[in-house]
Amino acid sequence: MEEHSPYNLNSPPLLIVISGPAGVGKDSVIQRLKERGCALHFVVTATDREPRPGEVHGVDYFFLPTFEFLRMKREQELLEHAVVYGQHKGVPKQQIREALASGKDVIMRVDVQGAATVRQLVPEALLIFLVATSEAELEERLRARGADSPEQLAKRLDAAREEMAQVSEFDYVVVNPDGELDRAVDDVIAIIQAEHCRTEPRVVKL
Amino acid sequence: MEEHSPYNLNSPPLLIVISGPAGVGKDSVIQRLKERGCALHFVVTATDREPRPGEVHGVDYFFLPTFEFLRMKREQELLEHAVVYGQHKGVPKQQIREALASGKDVIMRVDVQGAATVRQLVPEALLIFLVATSEAELEERLRARGADSPEQLAKRLDAAREEMAQVSEFDYVVVNPDGELDRAVDDVIAIIQAEHCRTEPRVVKL
Repeated sequence: MEEHSPYNLNSPPLLIVISGPAGVGKDSVIQRLKERGCALHFVVTATDREPRPGEVHGVDYFFLPTFEFLRMKREQELLEHAVVYGQHKGVPKQQIREALASGKDVIMRVDVQGAATVRQLVPEALLIFLVATSEAELEERLRARGADSPEQLAKRLDAAREEMAQVSEFDYVVVNPDGELDRAVDDVIAIIQAEHCRTEPRVVKL
Repeated sequence: MEEHSPYNLNSPPLLIVISGPAGVGKDSVIQRLKERGCALHFVVTATDREPRPGEVHGVDYFFLPTFEFLRMKREQELLEHAVVYGQHKGVPKQQIREALASGKDVIMRVDVQGAATVRQLVPEALLIFLVATSEAELEERLRARGADSPEQLAKRLDAAREEMAQVSEFDYVVVNPDGELDRAVDDVIAIIQAEHCRTEPRVVKL
């Protein structure tokens, strides 16, 4: 295809963000996309904590020294970052730049607050909000994880309620019904495919 | 689901328009969508010409008397209409209203000029522009149909070139490469699926 032909319709690679309240299944969706062999670059988060047994550098996390984190933060080289229990976590921009430069769509999961940060830094990011079918279903799932005290559970549900109000800040909303993960994953794949057909492509600058 | 719950995410039915220059395969895409049993209402065009042998009222066309056409035109009850060789053709709005009211997505094929009319009357319509891979491919297809004189062919290609300039007026552009109809159909299906996940749904008023 000629470069300046109207038939040159190659669309640029996307930066896809999967977000939503705790318990909606963000990790499960990402995991299933990997299992299906989707041609995506799956963002690997960086952390300065020690690797646990079995964890692989570059697969589970990028394990970096703390000074490296502080440097990236200072140089605004982190797309998103947080300090959890005194340990740094974050997404290096360079990783995303390289994947996009290779022509690959990039996908990452972030919480709702992190998605707001990404939207601000990269307005052309494709933002997908994942939701359960109902609040009752979300509560059931969080309860089933068994990780929370009743107080923590109530707090998470309050947070989820507030986060749900931000749906309209996202481009798409995908329902992830209990036991029907593949339906949600099909929606995500359709959204990516459709976005590559848009006449106004998203050109990510990072 | 409760009516006013943020979890009530049922999206309204879509009015989908497949358009593009002559020879890009609009009818083939519609035909394949039918063969795949997609849950769509396929718009049936109305005409005032006589049915040809084998043509079925309500399937191939709605065969209507001319006075009925003139009434619909006068009452602005045609979404799109044209007079071809002295015969009327058009799309009655009522058919689309009823299909949308039943909750079904509605799909129709129109030429590029007709798509401009639909866009004006129904800004919330979902407009898909179908293209060949290149102008050479389009020329080859039109030649293969064998229906045109060299002058007509040149005219059609001129028209296609002008129509290509209108791509940006559409929401999506789908490439229909020679011999890969199913790829184009997959794109159309993905677009419809994705559009139902939009946080700003298209609410068609007709």
